[in-house]
Amino acid sequence: MAQHFDTGPGLCDAPDAVTTDYRLTQTMLRIKDPALSLDFYTRVLGMRLVRRLDFPEMKFSLYFIGFIPASEDHAVPSDDLARTTYTFNRDNLLELTHNWGTEDDADFSYHDGNQDPRGFGHIGITVPDVYAASERFEQLGVPFVKRPDDGKMKGLAFIKDPDGYWIEVIQADMVERQARTGDAA
Amino acid sequence: MAQHFDTGPGLCDAPDAVTTDYRLTQTMLRIKDPALSLDFYTRVLGMRLVRRLDFPEMKFSLYFIGFIPASEDHAVPSDDLARTTYTFNRDNLLELTHNWGTEDDADFSYHDGNQDPRGFGHIGITVPDVYAASERFEQLGVPFVKRPDDGKMKGLAFIKDPDGYWIEVIQADMVERQARTGDAA
Repeated sequence: MAQHFDTGPGLCDAPDAVTTDYRLTQTMLRIKDPALSLDFYTRVLGMRLVRRLDFPEMKFSLYFIGFIPASEDHAVPSDDLARTTYTFNRDNLLELTHNWGTEDDADFSYHDGNQDPRGFGHIGITVPDVYAASERFEQLGVPFVKRPDDGKMKGLAFIKDPDGYWIEVIQADMVERQARTGDAA
Repeated sequence: MAQHFDTGPGLCDAPDAVTTDYRLTQTMLRIKDPALSLDFYTRVLGMRLVRRLDFPEMKFSLYFIGFIPASEDHAVPSDDLARTTYTFNRDNLLELTHNWGTEDDADFSYHDGNQDPRGFGHIGITVPDVYAASERFEQLGVPFVKRPDDGKMKGLAFIKDPDGYWIEVIQADMVERQARTGDAA
């Protein structure tokens, strides 16, 4: 029988049927300054703001953003409550949390998880052409952790968002293509 | 004109056309012990292991997991290289990074991002019924950060994975339903 899935320690091969409709829908990152983050994620990466929720009593706002193709516009409800439901049902969103006031504190910064104490590593975006995307990021002044041809792993880039969170820039077929053409590093 | 998207500082309303095919595909978290994490994410949450990549020279492994419905099995390539491409193209995956040996170090732990220094907050899963899901998690001994009726925000739970990373458990229509029925906290 063809092996469609991999093996690993602790794996359960028969997920409980009650989990059938569970979905991974969002990743939450705290941000210092929404003006910088929204500029980056919309102008540079091309995401759109699906829902903004303000909590004045607790002095924070949530920005739910993602790559929403124009073809999906008609499915995004104009009614605020319905759009909240849509948001919590939508795959592949980032939830950016802004605690009010951090943007005015010159000494304030969040922790990207890649220096001690480590934990969270990065989010990843898949693009059609990692070299073209990286060249554009370069022109737009985006800081790189790794350019596509730096280091051992060619054809893979890491950039930083305004808080320093790492974003992997992936071309889906790169590993396969390198292996099949012997072009691997 | 109906307002399908929200407004915020720094927003660019016209994403560059070259970003049209960009997609948010993965979130990477470092894990101490794959046997514990894979057990949790597959047995308790119902995810499946799409791809495992071992890097013996650098002594680490990557586990790409996600909610893959049985109806998608036929689309998951049995060829390893093709499955790698599938993996990097697949939305909604977690990339769990295991640096070999951490599981044998009793004092080793990763940082969940919710105590200082803060940054990453959580991943979120959407489930059909947050109360039913939480009751099952409780029975399975999963630690909670917040049970659905704890605190001010009712109908929303947070659990912890084996490394202590927070997972929000969301019922998509909860906020809308509470607002429309006046049942909000």
